[in-house]
Amino acid sequence: MAVQTVASTTDSAKTVDLGPAAALSCRECGHRVPLGPVFACEECFGPLEIAYDFSAYDAEELRKQIEAGPANIWRYAPLLPVPADVADKPNLNPGWTKLVKADNLARELGVTGGLYVKDDSGNPTHSFKDRVVAQALEAARAFGFTTLSCSSTGNLAGAVGAAAARAGFRSCVFIPHDLEQGKIVMAAVYGGDLVGIEGNYDDVNRFCSELIGDPAGEGWGFVNVNLRPYYAEGSKTLAYEICEQLGWQLPDQIVVPIASGSQLTKIDKGLQELIKLGLVEDKPYKIFGAQAEGCSPVSTAFKAGQDVVRPQKPNTIAKSLAIGNPADGPYVLDIARRTGGSVEDVNDEQVVDAIKILARTEGIFAETAGGVTVGVTKKLIENGVLDPTKTTVVLNTGDGLKTLDAVAGTGLTATIRPNLDSFREAGLA
Amino acid sequence: MAVQTVASTTDSAKTVDLGPAAALSCRECGHRVPLGPVFACEECFGPLEIAYDFSAYDAEELRKQIEAGPANIWRYAPLLPVPADVADKPNLNPGWTKLVKADNLARELGVTGGLYVKDDSGNPTHSFKDRVVAQALEAARAFGFTTLSCSSTGNLAGAVGAAAARAGFRSCVFIPHDLEQGKIVMAAVYGGDLVGIEGNYDDVNRFCSELIGDPAGEGWGFVNVNLRPYYAEGSKTLAYEICEQLGWQLPDQIVVPIASGSQLTKIDKGLQELIKLGLVEDKPYKIFGAQAEGCSPVSTAFKAGQDVVRPQKPNTIAKSLAIGNPADGPYVLDIARRTGGSVEDVNDEQVVDAIKILARTEGIFAETAGGVTVGVTKKLIENGVLDPTKTTVVLNTGDGLKTLDAVAGTGLTATIRPNLDSFREAGLA
Ligand SMILES: Cc1ncc(COP(=O)(O)O)c(C=O)c1O
Ligand SMILES: Cc1ncc(COP(=O)(O)O)c(C=O)c1O
Ligand SMILES: [Zn+2]
Ligand SMILES: [Zn+2]
Repeated sequence: MAVQTVASTTDSAKTVDLGPAAALSCRECGHRVPLGPVFACEECFGPLEIAYDFSAYDAEELRKQIEAGPANIWRYAPLLPVPADVADKPNLNPGWTKLVKADNLARELGVTGGLYVKDDSGNPTHSFKDRVVAQALEAARAFGFTTLSCSSTGNLAGAVGAAAARAGFRSCVFIPHDLEQGKIVMAAVYGGDLVGIEGNYDDVNRFCSELIGDPAGEGWGFVNVNLRPYYAEGSKTLAYEICEQLGWQLPDQIVVPIASGSQLTKIDKGLQELIKLGLVEDKPYKIFGAQAEGCSPVSTAFKAGQDVVRPQKPNTIAKSLAIGNPADGPYVLDIARRTGGSVEDVNDEQVVDAIKILARTEGIFAETAGGVTVGVTKKLIENGVLDPTKTTVVLNTGDGLKTLDAVAGTGLTATIRPNLDSFREAGLA
Repeated sequence: MAVQTVASTTDSAKTVDLGPAAALSCRECGHRVPLGPVFACEECFGPLEIAYDFSAYDAEELRKQIEAGPANIWRYAPLLPVPADVADKPNLNPGWTKLVKADNLARELGVTGGLYVKDDSGNPTHSFKDRVVAQALEAARAFGFTTLSCSSTGNLAGAVGAAAARAGFRSCVFIPHDLEQGKIVMAAVYGGDLVGIEGNYDDVNRFCSELIGDPAGEGWGFVNVNLRPYYAEGSKTLAYEICEQLGWQLPDQIVVPIASGSQLTKIDKGLQELIKLGLVEDKPYKIFGAQAEGCSPVSTAFKAGQDVVRPQKPNTIAKSLAIGNPADGPYVLDIARRTGGSVEDVNDEQVVDAIKILARTEGIFAETAGGVTVGVTKKLIENGVLDPTKTTVVLNTGDGLKTLDAVAGTGLTATIRPNLDSFREAGLA
């Protein structure tokens, strides 16, 4: 593809309009290349990130512009790799989800400093993945791709299918063949191709990398592979929204689920940007990572004091987090250590308990990933690692309707005939 | 209960603060009673409605106040039976869902005048029921109830369970025992009591009326029975939002699903209020009702030119709309006829097709109720009843994840091994 060629040369001019995105820059060695559908540094194979030009921004003006913007992620368009007119293009307009003041949950967990749930189940396909896909979609448009694709643990598949439908792209997404019914149907219903792979997510992901190098993958934008630098930026919007919703303040502590680690890494990047831009006061914050015990390569490395993340074979009901070989694992370790946070895990039973606690206290029905973050929050408080007197934000990144089996034991209290006698017999009066 | 006594006397002063709500007034004979947990006129058994005092409002000021309000239904608090500080009380803050400009669907259906989907799957429990429950909750607080209850076709059960959890009420909800798994789990997960009734919705509803008259029901607020006048007002917010999102303009045509008919009736009431308040220009609009063929008492009456609605025994996959004896059926007929709209129905196959069309064109995954409205819209256009050159709003009131079985045929395009050969064999390249 012509575009791919342009992207891998370092001297060609910037040819696409992705707003403030100026170039791609290597996270490891700083090597810069023009914007294009590439994700690994040609010098050192490090991951490429978006480098921005924010030099013209004035904090007060920017804040006003954001506050006057739409009730979705495009209020932050000046900070994202998207054209200025992005809100006029067909996309799902995700974001600006509720930051719920969770007073009942706070009482239950003993948090006194203010506990909030950032509830991303309110997104169009009911997970935070709509945020990242919306960025990748703009990149795909800019680079002339016609098929939107991904490897997915479930939520991304639905987000890509829906976004492609709205935007008029063909889609073909790849998932482990044994995902939850809710995730399979939601990925299929938008009419794109949905391919089940006999293997786990890491097998799916490896296959997608192969496909990108093959003529069969020509014209395909894999949102989390060759478009990963753009895609990943979408998670910054979680940081932006949390701070804006707190009245342009940093929280003291954030608990974030980890699959590949991309989201956690970019939430940190978003917070750093807000500080540098002068949109929030510079003060310390701690980021905590949450994994399921059955897939805890990052928390294992954290606890062992290691810098490298040793791959695991996942076995957990938190299938959306079941990435045994997380690409951004080392960066997560860095961030947890630098900010004074940590990485912790909970077992499947604790995940289910946490889903029920959140539902019972706040009326929020989370998927297993949300059970992981709430469960880890509980554990970190019990262990004295998370400070209950500080402002704490817990992410719910997905929706309970997609992982019904996790709480399938929950059902009817009683079945009765439609009369008072039967009601009384059931002991409900 | 003391409150119930107050409510049934006509001369007692208004004792509760529900904002602009001044009294209850009979829709049939105009008889007024003070605000209380009553729903039927003591004179004629007609349904009671909220009567407001909007006399102090200035259109320009009101519009500004609304626009400066929160991104949820409480921006319209001055027009709802809720206290002015409602946004500070624990509730799910539903509403302000997306009005999606559905250009792809418009092309598919041949609409040239502007087609919009009001997508209420973005609400906290993913149906429009969060809007109505939020009103009933304020009434329950005002009247001192401690248990929140309802008869439900599925969505209401989840909305009540979640709202009760957040607000600190006990909940006990009643559903037909054979609902979809997604609806049962979502109703149960919040930790309240969930009672399956051996019978259909009309049996459930009859039983709830019995329970209200019984000591066992003391202290129980049935959101859609003894709190129905308050509950119903929540659907006005759909009308408000649609007009505000269209730039304070009435749409020409709206397509609304019908179960009990409450929602359609109150959407009309909301539009009328906006006209009277001077928030939109007074011009004609048409309201169309949508039912499933397997439960079409209102559309049958409409087509037969009758004023009375003859009860039916429901048999349709659109279980959330399966009310065979709709309380507000006659009012729906009135409104459809007065506005020049109509009431139409589609069969289950057309419902499923419509779900898929909406998903494929707009990336919106609707539950069966949404399939009914989109399917009816398609049929009304084909029959020349709905004018494709006019601005048309179609309601999606629920979420596809709750009725997965309707599209269970949708699934994997192919299952392959994680290599290019297997990919090619599957014919996907
Ligand atoms: C619901 C949910 N939460 C969190 C994540 C974690 O994402 P990341 O790979 O960015 O760590 C995923 C990833 O699939 C997810 O589906
Ligand atoms: C998804 C959905 N849409 C529409 C309706 C119709 O509501 P109404 O009873 O107000 O006509 C219902 C009622 O349960 C519903 O669940
Ligand atoms: Zn490098
Ligand atoms: Zn009367």
